Amino acid sequence: MMPGGGRCAACKYLRRRCPSDCIFSLYFPANDPQRFARVHKIYGASNVAKMLQQLPANLRAEAADSLSFEARHRVEDPVYGCVGIIHRLHQQIQNAETQLAKTQAQLFGFINTIID
Amino acid sequence: MMPGGGRCAACKYLRRRCPSDCIFSLYFPANDPQRFARVHKIYGASNVAKMLQQLPANLRAEAADSLSFEARHRVEDPVYGCVGIIHRLHQQIQNAETQLAKTQAQLFGFINTIID
Repeated sequence: MMPGGGRCAACKYLRRRCPSDCIFSLYFPANDPQRFARVHKIYGASNVAKMLQQLPANLRAEAADSLSFEARHRVEDPVYGCVGIIHRLHQQIQNAETQLAKTQAQLFGFINTIID
Repeated sequence: MMPGGGRCAACKYLRRRCPSDCIFSLYFPANDPQRFARVHKIYGASNVAKMLQQLPANLRAEAADSLSFEARHRVEDPVYGCVGIIHRLHQQIQNAETQLAKTQAQLFGFINTIID
């Protein structure tokens, strides 16, 4: 049951009564039906429930957020999902490190000019 | 059916005959049973099959790899999964950019010393 009564997004989607100890209600509020629809599409409701139940209560909000994030990116990019983001970030790190190495080389060049 | 005959990892896991047009067989070889076990645990076999079937055949191997990657990281880190990696990479980019800005400032300092 949602704080303030009513059904959560998961129970609305699944067309069922929202029980007082609903595993979804704290993490899938009724005002964001897409958040639940996406994790349902990618993982299935019972897998999401299982993954949340296996965690201590204080870690479930973070887990629901990261599952929602991964599901959103899998819906947007069905081939690479989050792994596409990871590839792009690796590329960005490589670019930053290349630029750093170049700038350091220029800096050492100047230092050597002054020392000579 | 696996190239060379026999059942793929998915059909072995699901204790079923591996059909000649098995959606899993090319991407879940029998010699890596954990690869299928992980995606089954996180997404469920029918969701994995659906996600692969919805893609053109030439993109399925990449999709199976990215699903396996995400599943492995969700098993290893049930709270953050791949999102934990993304956070760490963002941190690494921030560190590289901070170091680059410092080095550039030093470089410009030397250039100004020479010009003055």
